[in-house]
Amino acid sequence: MNTEEALVTSAINAWKGAIERADKLFSPLSEDQLQKEVAPGKNRLVYLWGHLTAVHDRMLPLLYLGERLHPEYDDLFLTNPDKSRPNLPPAGEIKKSWDAVNNKLLSGFGGVSAGDWLQKHASVSEEEFAKDPSRNRFAILLSRTSHIAFHLGQTALIPK
Amino acid sequence: MNTEEALVTSAINAWKGAIERADKLFSPLSEDQLQKEVAPGKNRLVYLWGHLTAVHDRMLPLLYLGERLHPEYDDLFLTNPDKSRPNLPPAGEIKKSWDAVNNKLLSGFGGVSAGDWLQKHASVSEEEFAKDPSRNRFAILLSRTSHIAFHLGQTALIPK
Repeated sequence: MNTEEALVTSAINAWKGAIERADKLFSPLSEDQLQKEVAPGKNRLVYLWGHLTAVHDRMLPLLYLGERLHPEYDDLFLTNPDKSRPNLPPAGEIKKSWDAVNNKLLSGFGGVSAGDWLQKHASVSEEEFAKDPSRNRFAILLSRTSHIAFHLGQTALIPK
Repeated sequence: MNTEEALVTSAINAWKGAIERADKLFSPLSEDQLQKEVAPGKNRLVYLWGHLTAVHDRMLPLLYLGERLHPEYDDLFLTNPDKSRPNLPPAGEIKKSWDAVNNKLLSGFGGVSAGDWLQKHASVSEEEFAKDPSRNRFAILLSRTSHIAFHLGQTALIPK
């Protein structure tokens, strides 16, 4: 493996580690446990799990890795705050979506060369990208890894 | 800039962005505001600020970037929980330490080549590193960037 491939591998490993920590946290929870808020009046665990799934689902087209699998999650977990939608999917269904989205992403990551990670992502125009090449796919991978950590930090506040 | 340099630059940019977000959050706070807990009974902002400073200070020797500047922060903000030490440094002093540590790190980052980012960090032995080359300096940079996000996520829960 050359230097550029090893750098990309490190970043994908960091992503995988974050996904595994989130999976270990959310997947074993019962419907009741998923109703817990991270702090009084704040987001419930079920919302954060669906929110991460929605944000990751949006990474598929953003990184040119294919069509979204669950665009319907945006309304439930992203564009509206928690508790604004009365009927959320059951835990087993969120788990399936979470796994499917993350598996599709990870398998897609494997086909992106180091040079392609530095290409523009889908939400930036050619013009803007020419001015600011830091708006590349690698930056998305890094920022979404931190996004998982951002919410895991919140879940760590729930009393055991 | 070649591919490997651009990948490193992306990761350093992600780090800088996280530092800037944390700085914007903590630096303007008064002593009173720094006493706020992120959730009832949880860490105070002053503790998290010192904690991030201590963790970043430890990155200096870990990444072979020089001696630590504030080893005394470990006792106050890392090896002991919040509220176990009655006298914490005043905000102005934490701000100075925070800036000094992050400036020394950032300036050190500039002198690390892409290949050197993939070398072992100081807490892994040559033997362990030969078995698992993923325990490199780049992985530390990525994980410490996520560590900032982890705690920023908690601070985001404080009512405005």
